[in-house]
Amino acid sequence: MRFSYISHLHCPKCGKEYPADRIQQLCECGSPLLVDYDLKELKKNWMPADLAGRSNDLWRYHELLPVMDEKNVVTLGEGMTPLLRMERAGQDMGIPHLLMKDEGIIPTGSFKARGAAVGVSKAKELGVQELAMPTNGNAGAAWALYAARAGIKASIVMPVGAPLITRNEVAVSGANLNLVNGLISDAGQMVGQAVKAHGLYDASTLKEPYRIEGKKTMGIEIAEQMHWKVPDVILYPTGGGVGLIGIHKALKELAELGWIKNKLPRLVAVQAAGCAPIVKAWEEGRTDSQFWEQSETVAFGINVPKALGDFLVLAAIAETDGCAVAVEDGELLQEQALIARLEGAFVCPEGAAAFAAARRLKQSGWIQAEETVLVLNTGSGIKYPETVNVEAPVLQPGDLLQRRTEEGEVSWGRKGKSTNEM
Amino acid sequence: MRFSYISHLHCPKCGKEYPADRIQQLCECGSPLLVDYDLKELKKNWMPADLAGRSNDLWRYHELLPVMDEKNVVTLGEGMTPLLRMERAGQDMGIPHLLMKDEGIIPTGSFKARGAAVGVSKAKELGVQELAMPTNGNAGAAWALYAARAGIKASIVMPVGAPLITRNEVAVSGANLNLVNGLISDAGQMVGQAVKAHGLYDASTLKEPYRIEGKKTMGIEIAEQMHWKVPDVILYPTGGGVGLIGIHKALKELAELGWIKNKLPRLVAVQAAGCAPIVKAWEEGRTDSQFWEQSETVAFGINVPKALGDFLVLAAIAETDGCAVAVEDGELLQEQALIARLEGAFVCPEGAAAFAAARRLKQSGWIQAEETVLVLNTGSGIKYPETVNVEAPVLQPGDLLQRRTEEGEVSWGRKGKSTNEM
Repeated sequence: MRFSYISHLHCPKCGKEYPADRIQQLCECGSPLLVDYDLKELKKNWMPADLAGRSNDLWRYHELLPVMDEKNVVTLGEGMTPLLRMERAGQDMGIPHLLMKDEGIIPTGSFKARGAAVGVSKAKELGVQELAMPTNGNAGAAWALYAARAGIKASIVMPVGAPLITRNEVAVSGANLNLVNGLISDAGQMVGQAVKAHGLYDASTLKEPYRIEGKKTMGIEIAEQMHWKVPDVILYPTGGGVGLIGIHKALKELAELGWIKNKLPRLVAVQAAGCAPIVKAWEEGRTDSQFWEQSETVAFGINVPKALGDFLVLAAIAETDGCAVAVEDGELLQEQALIARLEGAFVCPEGAAAFAAARRLKQSGWIQAEETVLVLNTGSGIKYPETVNVEAPVLQPGDLLQRRTEEGEVSWGRKGKSTNEM
Repeated sequence: MRFSYISHLHCPKCGKEYPADRIQQLCECGSPLLVDYDLKELKKNWMPADLAGRSNDLWRYHELLPVMDEKNVVTLGEGMTPLLRMERAGQDMGIPHLLMKDEGIIPTGSFKARGAAVGVSKAKELGVQELAMPTNGNAGAAWALYAARAGIKASIVMPVGAPLITRNEVAVSGANLNLVNGLISDAGQMVGQAVKAHGLYDASTLKEPYRIEGKKTMGIEIAEQMHWKVPDVILYPTGGGVGLIGIHKALKELAELGWIKNKLPRLVAVQAAGCAPIVKAWEEGRTDSQFWEQSETVAFGINVPKALGDFLVLAAIAETDGCAVAVEDGELLQEQALIARLEGAFVCPEGAAAFAAARRLKQSGWIQAEETVLVLNTGSGIKYPETVNVEAPVLQPGDLLQRRTEEGEVSWGRKGKSTNEM
């Protein structure tokens, strides 16, 4: 048995093939490259039962991952995140079979850990000494920390507006952190310049082919956790769209291996109304998107004005009879609070956007009540404290406790000073 | 097979027994109560092999947990956190077999989720409608969110100095949040008054018997993840000490079941020098601790001036030939940065304290180089952004990237404005 069944890389645009045993970035034609596996051979040697007793992380699927030698695996225990029933929220939306895959329960607190774990492991295998990348925060945090574990140097560039906690994560890792007064597209331009000038490994979204392989494990896990019977619909908050592309790739590979028993899910790309290039392209019937000017949303992770893999996202939606939906910031913040109150889950604003989209699609009839609907929460709400408004009385020792109901009534003790007045 | 083998509760101080089928708080004598199981019966019916194929969360050990009916389980997928090898940090400390159990990779980002999951589930089973508790932040966040999932009302009181993010978690859950200009002991006094006046369920540390059962699953997981051969030493950051008591209880129960193959680990209670009542009691040979005046430490979770279960912590240390160690704030912050740079793990300050203690104990010869040493990181560093100093240049779009080495040298591009000047 081989540890990995990787065979080569190919370009989904022009078809050109590349060997996977040396550093590759984009195709000559400018397109991202995808990883191919020797699925015919693997099908003969690998069955779902082989997974029993393996580690509870994404490396349990090592045959379908690109790292060839186990000793190059760089892991913090990422993967096999909880798949939870959301009964009360589902009831509220009229979707009784509502599920959440909670990617907040993972090292670095966001699904970016998957791409970083596999991307950094493969970079280590390929002999990379130093990498650089632009980020909206979470990806940079994950890559900086995994690079530290691998002993690889990292330069990370993020917008000043990115979630503050992700700055701390990059800083504590010892990586070279630069901030930019602009968007991730500006950060990307600066990284491109440095990559060219200093010969760094470009770890930008889809500019190396392996992050997507890490992300695809979300799809494999969903299938395994549902006993190889996949849901009817998967909603995914879409910035760069790597997770959606990855999940689609995973499900097709599993189907080819004969592991999936039913029809592939309809994939839904969810964006914020303030940055919805994929939704616009989808509605206009285009196969790629246009740069979204002056993008803005509280769901910072999906503030991506133009994604390199937009054509792959749009193709995945089209192939699965899916769709693309935009939701307003107010809507997603309301959904975030509701999910916490009904389900005890503090989801990130991007995940909340996907819940809001599920609600919309049920209302419009696109989702049927009997369908099994899975929402990907891509990160922990802990990383976005600014999305929650805290109002609480400040008491002195010995004061009586106050009780505040949802209506704001105070029925215990005397009034204290509110945090808002501090 | 029964879902739970719980039999009754007993008082470790006076020996009095209580039935477990109704609400119980402290013993008449003022001591916390402990949960007993019908281990003789369980030993006949349960083997490690039975765990294969069970859910990857702490409920895989339901026979040794207090919830009798599976339908009362309130879960967010907590447990089975990563057990990681810390090769580079271990090398740095002279402890080649250094391990970390990473309790940051869990719902709500701290090990408090374990106590909350089991405590809230049992509260639901006992018909609790409303609970109250004081907290240093993380426990309140966890209990508020799990209570929301269970449909139980919660009042949470935390010091104004507690980590800000935990305020957000409590607020988003819809719980009744009160802040106090004081310590957790002040918050506890206020909760006690409200519990008495309004007939609430007192979920304070050790004032209900089930949180400890959730925490003990750390011990069971360590044993299972190490294939029932436990480490030589376990270091645990100790505030209320419930986790240490729980791990000790778990290991003794597993030994009684015949599952553990070697000697129990020496348990080490780690405290901050600014709040070290257990260490002081240990050094003075006392069996309980005294209130620590004017306690202060950046490791907020272990700022507990007097723990109700101090005598159980001291007994666990004594029984296992363990010890108690205090570390300075500067020391633990340095260790936190080092663990991030060498291992890519952003641990919380409390976890960092335990790493610093391991280093000290190796230097003093109490830990031997060939021993297997496990450090519990009780939460994610993400929840403590203020412990990390961020220095990064702020660039304008089109600027050249800057490269900062550990020595502060800038070898790329021109100088930008530092965040410190913003």
